[in-house]
Amino acid sequence: MADEVVLLDFWLSMFGMRVRIALAEKGIKYEYQEQDIFNKSPLLLEMNPIHKKIPVLIHNGKPVCESLIIVQYIDEVWNDKSPLLPSDPYQRAHARFWADFVDKKVYEVSRKLWTTKGEELEVGKKEFFEIYKILEGELGGKPYFGGETFGFVDLSLITFYSWFHVYEVFGNINIEAECPKIIAWAKRCLQKETVANSLADQKKVYEAVGQLRKIRGLE
Amino acid sequence: MADEVVLLDFWLSMFGMRVRIALAEKGIKYEYQEQDIFNKSPLLLEMNPIHKKIPVLIHNGKPVCESLIIVQYIDEVWNDKSPLLPSDPYQRAHARFWADFVDKKVYEVSRKLWTTKGEELEVGKKEFFEIYKILEGELGGKPYFGGETFGFVDLSLITFYSWFHVYEVFGNINIEAECPKIIAWAKRCLQKETVANSLADQKKVYEAVGQLRKIRGLE
Repeated sequence: MADEVVLLDFWLSMFGMRVRIALAEKGIKYEYQEQDIFNKSPLLLEMNPIHKKIPVLIHNGKPVCESLIIVQYIDEVWNDKSPLLPSDPYQRAHARFWADFVDKKVYEVSRKLWTTKGEELEVGKKEFFEIYKILEGELGGKPYFGGETFGFVDLSLITFYSWFHVYEVFGNINIEAECPKIIAWAKRCLQKETVANSLADQKKVYEAVGQLRKIRGLE
Repeated sequence: MADEVVLLDFWLSMFGMRVRIALAEKGIKYEYQEQDIFNKSPLLLEMNPIHKKIPVLIHNGKPVCESLIIVQYIDEVWNDKSPLLPSDPYQRAHARFWADFVDKKVYEVSRKLWTTKGEELEVGKKEFFEIYKILEGELGGKPYFGGETFGFVDLSLITFYSWFHVYEVFGNINIEAECPKIIAWAKRCLQKETVANSLADQKKVYEAVGQLRKIRGLE
């Protein structure tokens, strides 16, 4: 029986994009189902009743939720090509640590750049660069966080790149000026078709977020 | 060469206790190094410079941080006995989902029960039982979250049991009255020596937290 793979997703989600990259890396054919996150579908609520969030991977009718858990699942099921996590347990723990760091720190500090103003925004900018400087330290002189090849941490972080124009314009920051190694790394990742084809366009994300800011009364 | 295993921990930490259970399940001999979390040691800061938190497992000189990542590391390195995660990828993703749920939801709602007062505490109580009712639903009629045997999700959640007396007294709640299945499950887990010997005593945790509440001006 051929695998039936469905992805419930929302185009500008950095969490959804992670799953799209993993599926592309493994060369898995799947049905993409765009979700309305403001009016959640019965299918989404049925497949993820606990968090009620995209992305959800439905594999032969069974749901897997939470992006990093989905990516690990994909890596374990389709283990014949493009390994995303290292095979060595210590290196695997190291990769999990940094992907977890992205989840715990990067999302929150990034969000402040387009949802806050004034003093709160100034604090947000400072925190944003603190976190990215730590990431630059971890990257060091390697081409990828995974070393010589693109891996789990790269996949976890690169999807935020689709939002960099949002952060730069609404946060009034210049990421390349402060974190040139992150931008060079991102451009390196984007040379991979699997990444380039999975990421949302920066300008389109910017337009959509601009609309959201108007609704929220931030402009 | 024999493995050199050191655990940097703090006796009442529910995160540290997870690692102690995992090490006990695997029968690993290790050196326990109690840390002063109010005055962090140079060793802790060197081994976990990013989060500066216990627990840290130091295996042959190399640190692994974040409790669920440490437990997965232990399970992968010492894979000859007492598997903690299921071998099937779907079941493994399911276990990771619920352990992640414990991390994302249980700690926060539990903390409110001894750090807040008045209206905030009332909201906290409601949220606490909402989360534990969801966990009771997931447990269902099984003896353990892992099914017939104690596993990753059981290990992730049972360490909160050391704090149940804190929650009941300071939160003025009766957990057994609202969530009898959770208490029955906890007592089942405690029949295992590896669990019973790894958990901090409820009354001692209560005394220590009582002191902390006085310092914080909550009493």
